[in-house]
Amino acid sequence: MENGNKSEQMLLTQIAEPAPVSGSKVTVVGVGAVGMACAFSILTQNVASELVLVDVMADKLAGEMMDLQHGLTFMNNAKVNASTDYACTAGSKICIVTAGARQKEGESRLNLVQRNTDIFKGIIPNLVKYSPDTILVIVSNPADVLTYVAWKLSGLPKSRVLGSGTNLDSSRFRFLLSERFGVAPSSAHGWIIGEHGDTSVPVWSGVNVAGVRLRDINPKAGLEGDPENWNKLHEQVVQSAYEVIKLKGYTSWAIGLSVSSLASSIIRNTSCVHAVSTDVKGQYGIENEVFLSVPSVLGSDGVSHIVNMNLTSEEKAQLQKSATTLHEVQVNLKW
Amino acid sequence: MENGNKSEQMLLTQIAEPAPVSGSKVTVVGVGAVGMACAFSILTQNVASELVLVDVMADKLAGEMMDLQHGLTFMNNAKVNASTDYACTAGSKICIVTAGARQKEGESRLNLVQRNTDIFKGIIPNLVKYSPDTILVIVSNPADVLTYVAWKLSGLPKSRVLGSGTNLDSSRFRFLLSERFGVAPSSAHGWIIGEHGDTSVPVWSGVNVAGVRLRDINPKAGLEGDPENWNKLHEQVVQSAYEVIKLKGYTSWAIGLSVSSLASSIIRNTSCVHAVSTDVKGQYGIENEVFLSVPSVLGSDGVSHIVNMNLTSEEKAQLQKSATTLHEVQVNLKW
Amino acid sequence: MENGNKSEQMLLTQIAEPAPVSGSKVTVVGVGAVGMACAFSILTQNVASELVLVDVMADKLAGEMMDLQHGLTFMNNAKVNASTDYACTAGSKICIVTAGARQKEGESRLNLVQRNTDIFKGIIPNLVKYSPDTILVIVSNPADVLTYVAWKLSGLPKSRVLGSGTNLDSSRFRFLLSERFGVAPSSAHGWIIGEHGDTSVPVWSGVNVAGVRLRDINPKAGLEGDPENWNKLHEQVVQSAYEVIKLKGYTSWAIGLSVSSLASSIIRNTSCVHAVSTDVKGQYGIENEVFLSVPSVLGSDGVSHIVNMNLTSEEKAQLQKSATTLHEVQVNLKW
Amino acid sequence: MENGNKSEQMLLTQIAEPAPVSGSKVTVVGVGAVGMACAFSILTQNVASELVLVDVMADKLAGEMMDLQHGLTFMNNAKVNASTDYACTAGSKICIVTAGARQKEGESRLNLVQRNTDIFKGIIPNLVKYSPDTILVIVSNPADVLTYVAWKLSGLPKSRVLGSGTNLDSSRFRFLLSERFGVAPSSAHGWIIGEHGDTSVPVWSGVNVAGVRLRDINPKAGLEGDPENWNKLHEQVVQSAYEVIKLKGYTSWAIGLSVSSLASSIIRNTSCVHAVSTDVKGQYGIENEVFLSVPSVLGSDGVSHIVNMNLTSEEKAQLQKSATTLHEVQVNLKW
Repeated sequence: MENGNKSEQMLLTQIAEPAPVSGSKVTVVGVGAVGMACAFSILTQNVASELVLVDVMADKLAGEMMDLQHGLTFMNNAKVNASTDYACTAGSKICIVTAGARQKEGESRLNLVQRNTDIFKGIIPNLVKYSPDTILVIVSNPADVLTYVAWKLSGLPKSRVLGSGTNLDSSRFRFLLSERFGVAPSSAHGWIIGEHGDTSVPVWSGVNVAGVRLRDINPKAGLEGDPENWNKLHEQVVQSAYEVIKLKGYTSWAIGLSVSSLASSIIRNTSCVHAVSTDVKGQYGIENEVFLSVPSVLGSDGVSHIVNMNLTSEEKAQLQKSATTLHEVQVNLKW
Repeated sequence: MENGNKSEQMLLTQIAEPAPVSGSKVTVVGVGAVGMACAFSILTQNVASELVLVDVMADKLAGEMMDLQHGLTFMNNAKVNASTDYACTAGSKICIVTAGARQKEGESRLNLVQRNTDIFKGIIPNLVKYSPDTILVIVSNPADVLTYVAWKLSGLPKSRVLGSGTNLDSSRFRFLLSERFGVAPSSAHGWIIGEHGDTSVPVWSGVNVAGVRLRDINPKAGLEGDPENWNKLHEQVVQSAYEVIKLKGYTSWAIGLSVSSLASSIIRNTSCVHAVSTDVKGQYGIENEVFLSVPSVLGSDGVSHIVNMNLTSEEKAQLQKSATTLHEVQVNLKW
Repeated sequence: MENGNKSEQMLLTQIAEPAPVSGSKVTVVGVGAVGMACAFSILTQNVASELVLVDVMADKLAGEMMDLQHGLTFMNNAKVNASTDYACTAGSKICIVTAGARQKEGESRLNLVQRNTDIFKGIIPNLVKYSPDTILVIVSNPADVLTYVAWKLSGLPKSRVLGSGTNLDSSRFRFLLSERFGVAPSSAHGWIIGEHGDTSVPVWSGVNVAGVRLRDINPKAGLEGDPENWNKLHEQVVQSAYEVIKLKGYTSWAIGLSVSSLASSIIRNTSCVHAVSTDVKGQYGIENEVFLSVPSVLGSDGVSHIVNMNLTSEEKAQLQKSATTLHEVQVNLKW
Repeated sequence: MENGNKSEQMLLTQIAEPAPVSGSKVTVVGVGAVGMACAFSILTQNVASELVLVDVMADKLAGEMMDLQHGLTFMNNAKVNASTDYACTAGSKICIVTAGARQKEGESRLNLVQRNTDIFKGIIPNLVKYSPDTILVIVSNPADVLTYVAWKLSGLPKSRVLGSGTNLDSSRFRFLLSERFGVAPSSAHGWIIGEHGDTSVPVWSGVNVAGVRLRDINPKAGLEGDPENWNKLHEQVVQSAYEVIKLKGYTSWAIGLSVSSLASSIIRNTSCVHAVSTDVKGQYGIENEVFLSVPSVLGSDGVSHIVNMNLTSEEKAQLQKSATTLHEVQVNLKW
């Protein structure tokens, strides 16, 4: 048979060009365990109908792409592509960045941030070049500084660059609360804000089930001298990442799901409130341009509002301390 | 308290304007049983994140809108609006038209089509005015002529105007096949094409389970003289609409679900094949510009391809006969 | 062809009997607008994989069944049946009762309850006969008394009989809060408890976004003298049902979704907290066996816990008043 | 505070014991990449509401459990547990076995099967002990022999033990067909049957789009001398596993999704047709008790029917050859 006369062409008569890009295209940069958990959560939870993977490791990248493609029949016919070339990301509604170096033994935090900043220089401008109206969701660690770095490198409005931040810490907190209360995680309400990781801040005043505040039952909940030792739940949250890494070598599922929930609120334009890392200059006495997680209203244009929390002076002090630390790292970065 | 100092404003600090339109906005024109079943299917099946209802009956319209809004907590925080003014439909990816007059006793078909054409004159140009890149999905009856009418009134490329057509007839057929075979409807494959309604054409040569054709087991399946009388299933499909209307007064759920499946393939840009009413000029010896259902590849830009079926001469003759009938009605329409 | 040699039998070789009942079978009694909205929500939201409809109106029942069956290809291959005979409900995990008489003009409330009690005598024992381990969800009005009636007629433990109650009122409240706050309904937290309808109680102390209480911003929220008039939202909730009925003739979508959310928590055994009508004897100074809505933990065995709310004396008084009214109706019922 | 008076107890009043087991409990044995992809697919696709992981590696097991639990807020409040003790699997509707040794360099196939048989002796009887009515889904390789082994060890009826088999090969085939046809994977129909892996059999006679058979367009499709070389798609399917392993080190996503689709059909009792490994004695001239994949009807009691395919003599010969090879391995096993 001649060209133009193949079976597939005899089967179908073309009426118009197929649409080149789906309405809900998402790019994931970095195909490590975290990036792939993000990608797989987004596909299986029907958040996006088109997904592109980008990485510098061409082999691993191709392998992950094929493995996803082989299951598309079971994922509502989404489209999956991958490339080392950013051109394939064109028209993405969201770009999720999970790429980055890990801390070496004995490496200073500043040194790590500088190395990742250098890596981001090769990523962020390329993403914005091909998707100038995208929302950047930064997952790489250290999360808050790198969200700031991404914002600076992107030239995007600050509402369009956010870090996945303590959305994950809050989810861990809610699971632990749910276990102790004996109710579903989504019925156990609690927020962790501030810096993603060791110095995060649990807002005990807001912990509630059906609007009944734990603090109204136990006024010392989360404070020193609490006979019920609720603060041990926050300690467990902080230890969680370390413990999971010790046990299985890395974390993946929970961060993937956390990012998928952010992507869903953005793509569906829901105005759901999530704790994500956003510019908090002017909040809680913070005077520098730093990114920390606070409850934020998410929609298709990114962060539209942040929620003003009633924080204690201790909680504010912790946020200010985190802000100062972040700022010190930021001012020493070489661009 | 002063303006600018209300609780809701004290709760939130605005960072940026919320996005005015979601990526997957769908308009449904007509809030009768069919329109509402379309709307409710699309919302509960998570097909769209923003829905607008339009009708001329302002009261009914407001009631349906409120009833949906009261359940949004249970529908993934979609946004629902309604108006008698088409301005609220701006930016819709899909506009589903279910409005139209019903046949009066003794009314000729041509007369009914003319009345609905006149109604469409007030609908279609308004939809295209506010959503110039939309896909029109026509559900009003008689389906095939009105899809043609909508196309003519819209000025859109023919790939962007389609009728829900025999997607529903095929679904009914598959349910009946599934009952007889004892397998799930989605594992019982069969296509009904042509005119939506009495003169539709079941393509018996394609009926199969797991690629095993009924015709390879029973060569007479669907033909005269078939001792197993498979064609009674097609008769049941044709009678279905009449029977459901006789029993409950109207049809709603199945047509709503059928349209929701089309909307999903369009919004998600899946390239799924559905039997929808599309321009078949040049196919199967049809020489006039008429719309009939054939298996079509659907994506975000509408119909990209149609599948070329292997039809028997009887099947082709039936399509041509339908085409002629439709054409006769069309040429007598006053625009 | 002979019997035993039909095409469908030649296509398939039987290995074992198919399972007679699915794990997640749900019965809906009453195929009016409310019952069908429940059924359709449960099917489209993938809550159950097998649904049975029961009603005394055989024609309407058959029409609704067929209309759903014609769309099963689009509903994940659920199974749908219907019968006037309760035998078809055997093995249901949940039985949802929407049947009942409506208030006639000039009819006393007691008279209406008595009429519906008489109707329930023909329904509840039949449901329990065929599904002795079922959970009963009562939707018929007046909701709270009829949940009590159903419990008495059923002989089931009180944890297995619940009324859909103020789960709907709370959802309406959250939508209105979400509109005013500018956040998603699922991020706007608020609970309405007590009697379903006019005398329901909004618990303003629990209204919050991200754990930030409205009352901490506006201490008078919901109270008399509140300059922001938040209580008008509760008035709107109470008026909602009347207004929707005035506008469209009945309510359907929101109540259907509300019940679907309860069914999901029960079938999935999630321990989610919902405001449902349950026995509140011994709570808030209520001394009689009456059913009122309070936040309740739902799982596969029904209500496992209720949440102890911090109510004001006014809120408690309203609950007690409702309890007294209900009790008076109950003691006058003829069994 | 005293015991019995803790905050969590003051918050809630217990009405009844929570249900100990959900209706849709699934166990996954083996928490390697394949087992975890199965578990994660099942949770994110809402297939089960309760999941238990079992493995002998206690650390890895605990790490995977915690990582899933931290994301439960985003997975519809499913319950996740893990243990090295099979007691925690009690009441599972489905047990998915992904555990097993991998082939060592130079190891004979028989030797590998014997090693895995010995491993299965420690798994299968324990699963059946705690869930005597379960369905076993075997994913470990070599898939077909190990499904036979599991069946023998289980004492279950053969309808309740199945191998995930060529459900994955068929999915890969459909993706490749979809790419070539330019339609969605779920609109590109094709079946691969027989032995999972190198000697699988593509049934070209059944390949179709919308019931239009590729063979009716190109009678040589899949045969020698086909100028369009369609059989290269089957070669790609066979090479897929090797290629993905070469590129990323293992396969995970597609097999996880494939198993999730089987679990869904079983739990939902859908009667969907899947290519799974089942006892084919008496089919296609196969005289021994061996398990090979054929299209099978799946429901809550496992395989109820198998589809009788119209195979060519070459296709039958290939199945018989696979059967003979499998049988030879089986007769040499030590139990």
